[in-house]
Amino acid sequence: MTIKLYCFGESGNAYKAALALELSGLEWEPVYVDFFGGEARSEAYLTNVNEMGEVPVLVDGDVKLTQSGVIQQYISDKTGKFGGNTDAERYEILRWVLFDNHKLSSQNGVTRFLLNFLPEDKRPAQAIGFLQGRLQAAYKVLNTHLEGRDWIVGDGLTNADISCCGYLFYPEPYGFVRADWPNIDCWLSNIENTPGWKHPYDLMPGHPSDRGL
Amino acid sequence: MTIKLYCFGESGNAYKAALALELSGLEWEPVYVDFFGGEARSEAYLTNVNEMGEVPVLVDGDVKLTQSGVIQQYISDKTGKFGGNTDAERYEILRWVLFDNHKLSSQNGVTRFLLNFLPEDKRPAQAIGFLQGRLQAAYKVLNTHLEGRDWIVGDGLTNADISCCGYLFYPEPYGFVRADWPNIDCWLSNIENTPGWKHPYDLMPGHPSDRGL
Repeated sequence: MTIKLYCFGESGNAYKAALALELSGLEWEPVYVDFFGGEARSEAYLTNVNEMGEVPVLVDGDVKLTQSGVIQQYISDKTGKFGGNTDAERYEILRWVLFDNHKLSSQNGVTRFLLNFLPEDKRPAQAIGFLQGRLQAAYKVLNTHLEGRDWIVGDGLTNADISCCGYLFYPEPYGFVRADWPNIDCWLSNIENTPGWKHPYDLMPGHPSDRGL
Repeated sequence: MTIKLYCFGESGNAYKAALALELSGLEWEPVYVDFFGGEARSEAYLTNVNEMGEVPVLVDGDVKLTQSGVIQQYISDKTGKFGGNTDAERYEILRWVLFDNHKLSSQNGVTRFLLNFLPEDKRPAQAIGFLQGRLQAAYKVLNTHLEGRDWIVGDGLTNADISCCGYLFYPEPYGFVRADWPNIDCWLSNIENTPGWKHPYDLMPGHPSDRGL
């Protein structure tokens, strides 16, 4: 049975799940969620798909899972890929997945939304500046960790990489400038050069141009 | 050997680890981190304790772990407690730990800091209002989930509860009003009534009054 993933192209959180599925070799297909039309906050979605009002949601037969980090763990449990080889690696991968959820993708996602997908007269400038300041600190932590490393944990691609890169390939400006962070830049190239890698807009349906942006 | 936990009383993220340790029955002792004096952002701390510049950090012999969710997982692996009994429960617990890191404790922590621990003339009012709006949405998700439930996952206390309650017992005002959310209120009482439960300020060293607040 083909795995279904509720997602849309603009979501870096959905991208983390979609990229893990794609690189794992599992058969999957996207189910488009009209986030910008309000679908994820509708009563039908909250009741039937995800009470948290978010993407991604994975459906694999009777299994339904939400939160990108849970879906990544499920793919690792199912395929043996990206989840680490020792207890120490598994804890270290979870550590970076949590850092990403707490400080990186969470704040990347909301800042990019505010700066690119809200009308210009509705953008809260001080909140955006505040979030961008916190993001610079998070980029610094990641860039420092990647000094002398090709991957965040161990010597190959893991869920730590797939999580932390969630929003970093998108072209819309929100404060992340790849050239400012040379170690992050090299590491993103390593991910892009992984066989089967795809850009979020090539992996999931939905693009800002669909809404005239 | 006694487990050491780098922490301070004002940190709800550290509280999640401290409460899991305390309720697990493991022997542990706190190591006070002078966060407000800048210790967690010092070169010595970043190099020797945690490159992420955060608490909590657990040291158990040769094992050093950071991120509250990783420490909770380690305690569950070591004691068999709070980690769920089936794969479905384990995924569901991780789901709420990630939701907490993404939407709940993360934003609770920073909003409480800005409103209570920054000088009044340095508080970014618009950013605070923005974060409070997002927090109301997160409280609603949790309150709705807790309808008819005593615990977030299954029929007893798990890491999902210990994670999501991280900042909800603190007295400093930041926008969470317990009486506004009846299901959260009952659930917090269930946690408080768990044998061995302690308030964050009774479990870890450091209190706002130490700084004259």
